[in-house]
Amino acid sequence: MDLTAYIRDVPDFPKPGVLFKDITPLLADPKAFGYAVARMGAHYATANLGAVAAAEARGFLFAAPLALELNLPLVPLRKPGKLPYQTHSFKYDLEYGSAELHMHIDGIPDGARVLLVDDVLATGGTMAAAGKLVEQAGGVVAGCAFLIELGFLGGRKLLPNYELYSLLTY
Amino acid sequence: MDLTAYIRDVPDFPKPGVLFKDITPLLADPKAFGYAVARMGAHYATANLGAVAAAEARGFLFAAPLALELNLPLVPLRKPGKLPYQTHSFKYDLEYGSAELHMHIDGIPDGARVLLVDDVLATGGTMAAAGKLVEQAGGVVAGCAFLIELGFLGGRKLLPNYELYSLLTY
Repeated sequence: MDLTAYIRDVPDFPKPGVLFKDITPLLADPKAFGYAVARMGAHYATANLGAVAAAEARGFLFAAPLALELNLPLVPLRKPGKLPYQTHSFKYDLEYGSAELHMHIDGIPDGARVLLVDDVLATGGTMAAAGKLVEQAGGVVAGCAFLIELGFLGGRKLLPNYELYSLLTY
Repeated sequence: MDLTAYIRDVPDFPKPGVLFKDITPLLADPKAFGYAVARMGAHYATANLGAVAAAEARGFLFAAPLALELNLPLVPLRKPGKLPYQTHSFKYDLEYGSAELHMHIDGIPDGARVLLVDDVLATGGTMAAAGKLVEQAGGVVAGCAFLIELGFLGGRKLLPNYELYSLLTY
């Protein structure tokens, strides 16, 4: 199945000159969406994983069905003030300003191999922060799975120690 | 399966005096998480649905696997500035200030019966806004499914015309 047929180019979003890769046509087609999740699942079926983790919001769209398919705990990584229990946190820089990601302190089974999931690998900042949180909690990053990798943004450079798996690369 | 065993009470979140129902233990147990999604799916299996829609972020956790289970399009409802294409929008009041929910104008198949999904029914504001968006786009709200209904908050009063289905009620 050619997943590129389910990605829509939206020009000038979020700002002039940027060609945004819109994944909503893929979400709107359960065959394509299910195929994407199944391919991620197949890639990690024998990876001896202990959990799947993802940052809100779009990471949840892929991580939730993938965790169920792999029969693994799902660990949500969220913005400040969203998780109710005690958290680990990691602050990271964005193009303008900074962001912070949180994870419950009991989110990761001790020593677990964790798969990180997101829809798009862009600059890599969010995924690098997610990796730091997993390691802070005593887990090991077993891999990072993406529907789309925007290779021209060089996000891989921020994630030199992780195995990266992308279904589509632009 | 007793799903209450997978909901953690966190006192004084998000503010003193509030007992927060934390769903992360359920997400951490794929058997319990899968059972919750399967029960929602069974309830709507014969409802002649055309799409599943959910507001970010926690709504995505249930809507994504449910849409795949029911073999239906998944329509993400998002905060302003997140969806790249043209959107319908609906502004609604919160306890302090207001919020706005957006949906792509081509998100809902014309005349489709749409299932709205969220983790928790609290005051009902977000779900009522989601319903307005579906109707604005020419869809019909076929039902609203929740993992948890906080009955004492009276959210049902804001949703008098919709069929509501909750797996747990407090």
